[in-house]
Amino acid sequence: MSPRVTEQHKEQRRLEILQAAAAVFKRKGYDQTSMQDVIDETGMSRGGVYLYFTGKEELFWALLEQVHAEHKTGYDALLEKYPSAWEAVEHFLRVQQEEFLHVKESLVPAMFEFFSSCWRDEKRRPFMATRYKTSVREFAAFLQAGVERGDFHPILPVETIAQFVISLLDGISADVLLIGDEVFDVTRQIDSLRVYLHHALQVKEGHTP
Amino acid sequence: MSPRVTEQHKEQRRLEILQAAAAVFKRKGYDQTSMQDVIDETGMSRGGVYLYFTGKEELFWALLEQVHAEHKTGYDALLEKYPSAWEAVEHFLRVQQEEFLHVKESLVPAMFEFFSSCWRDEKRRPFMATRYKTSVREFAAFLQAGVERGDFHPILPVETIAQFVISLLDGISADVLLIGDEVFDVTRQIDSLRVYLHHALQVKEGHTP
Repeated sequence: MSPRVTEQHKEQRRLEILQAAAAVFKRKGYDQTSMQDVIDETGMSRGGVYLYFTGKEELFWALLEQVHAEHKTGYDALLEKYPSAWEAVEHFLRVQQEEFLHVKESLVPAMFEFFSSCWRDEKRRPFMATRYKTSVREFAAFLQAGVERGDFHPILPVETIAQFVISLLDGISADVLLIGDEVFDVTRQIDSLRVYLHHALQVKEGHTP
Repeated sequence: MSPRVTEQHKEQRRLEILQAAAAVFKRKGYDQTSMQDVIDETGMSRGGVYLYFTGKEELFWALLEQVHAEHKTGYDALLEKYPSAWEAVEHFLRVQQEEFLHVKESLVPAMFEFFSSCWRDEKRRPFMATRYKTSVREFAAFLQAGVERGDFHPILPVETIAQFVISLLDGISADVLLIGDEVFDVTRQIDSLRVYLHHALQVKEGHTP
């Protein structure tokens, strides 16, 4: 095989393992998942999996990276699709709303388990901080694109708005997970967020909240 | 002793145990705390403590109740102190900001540990939902008092605004705990929340955000 084919093959393998790991983490959460569970899910050999990932924590960080990359791609696609940045934001809010309704079947419960053990772990905190800063920076860039198009004239720095949105979404995830979406009215929350964003961004006339 | 004195004594004992439990939960988190730790902290006998609380989970729920009662008292005191409801809200935001800076030494880390195991526990979820609804109702009542004084003319139902604020504060707690307040700019977040509230409540002229 040429080196190129080998590289492609390796990347394919890596993605298959990540996909299997995501399935297990979604089903069992973080704490209850073992490397053996992931290996079983892949159908590969033990050695085959350990060639790519040294353990469950490394797998989980890789999945978090993947989630970030998807967000980034998502923002770019929305900005491509809509000439109006506010319409892109509206679409983003609809996607969020949909995701909250399926939060129980997502990676979020495993994330909470993982994160709730992080606060005592000085070694992990810098990674958490990097992850957070990346989320804020990417969402801020998404908003900034609207400023550059002349659609937004924000009354707060876009980084401040981005930080606010990220924390709010973290809070909604936690709350909807804890109390269930029968009690927690996701639609109302997204409506509130839309009102905040429309005001904070000072969206150009003609785009109603 | 008269029954009255006995009742007072019992209540005093109960509060002492709760105070001791809070100290241990703050120091060790939820998972690592045992009933023996709490008993040691009180300096009482094992039987003396078990007379009041059957276990660590019951203690924790009682502490959560206590936190709620303090919030309720806090809202009432602010409304009493300030003729302007917006000034009461401003004071509330300053208190929140201060609390976030000391979140590591508070009960919040233990709460996150406790809650992150709740999402799988169907038995606990109704309690979580009740707790959440109580928080929202009390904060909504705080805002409603401003409506009744003619200080606020909200563009969203006060319950919607209250729900938004509670989720945001939950999210900020989680984020500041995970990444530390060196990275997480609490002041900015509170400024953003002030902007949101001032807009959503349509605060009467003369009260700047």
